Formats: sequence, structure tokens, C-alpha cells
Amino acid sequence: MDAPYELIYYTGVPGRGEHIRLILEEAGVSYKDNSSYPIDKRREAVTAYLAPEYKGERGNPPYYAPPLFKHGDLIISQTSNILMYLGPKLGLSGSRENDIYRVNALALTALDGLSNEVHDTHHPIAIELYYEDQKEESWRRSKEWIKGRLPKHLGYWQKVLESEECGQGPWLLGNTFTYADLVLFQASFPQCLDGVQFAFPKAMNQAKESGKYNKVFELWESVKARPNIAAYLASDRRQKYDWGIYRYYPENDVVAE
Amino acid sequence: MDAPYELIYYTGVPGRGEHIRLILEEAGVSYKDNSSYPIDKRREAVTAYLAPEYKGERGNPPYYAPPLFKHGDLIISQTSNILMYLGPKLGLSGSRENDIYRVNALALTALDGLSNEVHDTHHPIAIELYYEDQKEESWRRSKEWIKGRLPKHLGYWQKVLESEECGQGPWLLGNTFTYADLVLFQASFPQCLDGVQFAFPKAMNQAKESGKYNKVFELWESVKARPNIAAYLASDRRQKYDWGIYRYYPENDVVAE
Repeated sequence: MDAPYELIYYTGVPGRGEHIRLILEEAGVSYKDNSSYPIDKRREAVTAYLAPEYKGERGNPPYYAPPLFKHGDLIISQTSNILMYLGPKLGLSGSRENDIYRVNALALTALDGLSNEVHDTHHPIAIELYYEDQKEESWRRSKEWIKGRLPKHLGYWQKVLESEECGQGPWLLGNTFTYADLVLFQASFPQCLDGVQFAFPKAMNQAKESGKYNKVFELWESVKARPNIAAYLASDRRQKYDWGIYRYYPENDVVAE
Repeated sequence: MDAPYELIYYTGVPGRGEHIRLILEEAGVSYKDNSSYPIDKRREAVTAYLAPEYKGERGNPPYYAPPLFKHGDLIISQTSNILMYLGPKLGLSGSRENDIYRVNALALTALDGLSNEVHDTHHPIAIELYYEDQKEESWRRSKEWIKGRLPKHLGYWQKVLESEECGQGPWLLGNTFTYADLVLFQASFPQCLDGVQFAFPKAMNQAKESGKYNKVFELWESVKARPNIAAYLASDRRQKYDWGIYRYYPENDVVAE
């Protein structure tokens, strides 16, 4: 299909759309991104698909939430689903039979653990309420997350990267770089970002210095150094980290005891 | 591949494994299920795959959490991923080109909204803490969920079922029954269950009586009446609803004002 790739996502935050941008950038293919629209058109480009009167088009059902992805007549939602659609087309979902399912499982696990769970630390009661109306609960959830979940997640990724069955790194499937590496990178990015730090920089520094998760932090550096990714991160196409999935509240920046 | 299908999941709760059971039962294919193991072997059949010393096998990475699914040399995790693997093999992921991505998006949306979010209403602070240690927060989250999310989710599914682009029901893709219908059924099942009710029976009754979501409740009845599903629900292979994703706490059983 010669139709252009088109990402439809809220602009001004990397958010879930960023995973889609990274796979396209890594593959070096061109794509449309409504972030590049004039400012008054950007939000509208997304909300038109979510309006009550939007009933789907070209045989596609209506959508619950962005990111959306358009390719010819197909318009689909759900981050992991869009990645799974693009993976084989861009040669980034492994080379063996059924690798697409191995890669999708790894991507879903990274999205669940490091993206959704972190988001919920600042909105434990309801996404519709302000942070200020759930501050106490947010602090409690952050503390528990750092103690119980962060080591479990980092330990899991270290285990995958050490696994002989998976080739012992440097990538999640050994020598084969896939989009699961990009998802793990992006899902943990805000906690590792030099300079401005989001969510839990203290706990991440503690984890890094422990040496227990060295392969995870190495993977992170290796993704950042890939030529197409490095060029993208330095470009103005990369959205600024701000007020999206990851937020920095100093009071929640705790460490495990 | 002639290898048997094998579900590996905690027994005694329907949980996330139930979505896999339903697609296999609907298709009328035989499968192994460790729920049928002797009681002392059941938990072990799952935890062996999650132990620190388990490093993956036959080229598959180690796993973060069940359900797992085995088919020949392939062992994969993640509910939506397993469904996507089985869908085309069992003829339950649509008939048009790229329908697998439409079906996967619908399944992911139902799992996110009606399964994960409901689970978090009784564990808003941490999955590792007892309900009793997050009771106040759980009540607050339940109240907000009923008010803000439940109508949004039900409204979305009604919209899909009303969409001319999708054939206006009875199934999510019009006349084509897919596993997304099974996921929507199963994700909302505990709230609709006759007799024993889980999570939010009062709010669900209120939603049903409003008539605003009639197509969603009709789909629910139609899935339940499919011959293979009806036979399965009446069999002893169906796990009892108990203390899993959905829990009934009378104090959280509130209605929207």
C-alpha cells in the first residue's frame, strides 16, 4: 500500500503517540503527524474522531481514545495494536516465525508496567479529578509503587536481557532489534532523562547505582545512540516532556527504604 | 500445526484466562487447561514459569505474568496477544483485510476499560496491600468510576453497535461475530451476572433500566445464548466467580446521582 502513514494524536505531549513516532523514525519512513498542524487545528484533528456524532468511516468502528493511525482506508486505535500493524511492514518485529507475538507480549508488558502504572501514581482515584484532589492518595501510591513494583519491573527486564534463550541482549530478542526495545526505552525514558526529570528520579538513580539492572540501563543508552533515534531526539519533531503521562511532584519522589 | 492448545493460568478464578477459554470454547476446539490438574499441581503449573530461575525456553523470553499460552514451541503471554494469535486460526477475527487490527483494538479497549479499571477500584493504592488497607480510597475511586467512567464506556460500546459503518450490530463488526464480542461480554459479565453480583450491580441495573445502552445489554444476552458458550457456561469447566479481578464490596456498590 502506497498510502501515507498518518499519526493522529494530541500534540504538546509525547504520551502514547510517542511509541508510534519512534518506530516510524527508527525505520526512517516519512509520516504525517498532526503535531505539525497549525496550533488551532491540532486538537480538533483528534477530537473530530471522538465526537458523539462521529460514527466511524470506511468500515472502521468509532474510537474510544487516541492515538489513532491512518493508512489508506484503515484507521485503527490502541498503541500496541498500531505497533503490531507497523512492525512487520517496517521489519521491526523479529525474524522468526511467530516473533510478532513475542514482540507484542514484550511491548504490552512494558506499556502496562512502566507507562500505565506510573500514570496511575498521580491519578489513583480518578483521571477526571485534579491531582490536588488526590494528593494524599497519590503519595501513598507512589511510595508503594517504588517499593513493590519498580524493582519487580526492572528485575523482569534484566531477566529477559540475561536470558540465554533470548541471546543475552543487548536487545530483548538478543541480536535482533525490535520495536519492543523502543517501547521499553520510551516507557522508562522519563525516569532516566538527564536534566529535567519526571516521576521518580531519586528511585531510578538508586536502581541504577545498585548495579542490579545494568543491562536495562545499557539497553536504554543503546537505543538512544541509534542513528535515526539520536537524530529524531535532537530534532524539533520530538515533543517536549511536560504534563502528560509522567509528572514530577517532588513530594512523590521517594526512595525504597 | 497439530500441537495441542494449552492454557496456563491460575485456577479457581476466571480472571484474564477466561477470555482465552471463551474463544476456544466458542470455536469448539479441544485444549489443555491447568485448572483440570490435581489441586496440588495447579498453582505450581503457573508459578514454574514465573520463578527467578526460569529463563525462558525454546527461544521464548521469560514471562512477567499469566495467562500464558502454549502451542508447539511457542509460549506467549498477554491476554490480548494470545487472542490475536488464536483469532485467525479459529476464524474469529473478522473476514476483511486488516480486520484483525480492528478486532484487536476493540478487545484492548474492552479489557482496559471494563476489566483493568474495575480491578483498580478495589486496589487504588497498591495491588500488594489488602483491601482493608485502602478501603477509604477504594470507596472514593468506586464513586468516581461509576460517575465518570461507566457511562463513558457503556456509551462507547452503544455507539459502536449503532454505527452504520459497523453494520449496526448485533455484533461489534455488524453481522460478523468476532472474539471482541466475547471479550466485551466477559469483561462486563461480573456486573451483569444474575444471582451473585460482583463489583457494581446497582449502577449496572441503573444503566440497564435507563435504556440508553440497550444494544450493549442485547449483545450480552446474545453471546450468552450462543450454543457453544451456553454449553460451556453450564459446564464445570467454567470457573466460579470469586475473589479475582471483580469483587463485591457492599459499601462500594453506589449509583450515580
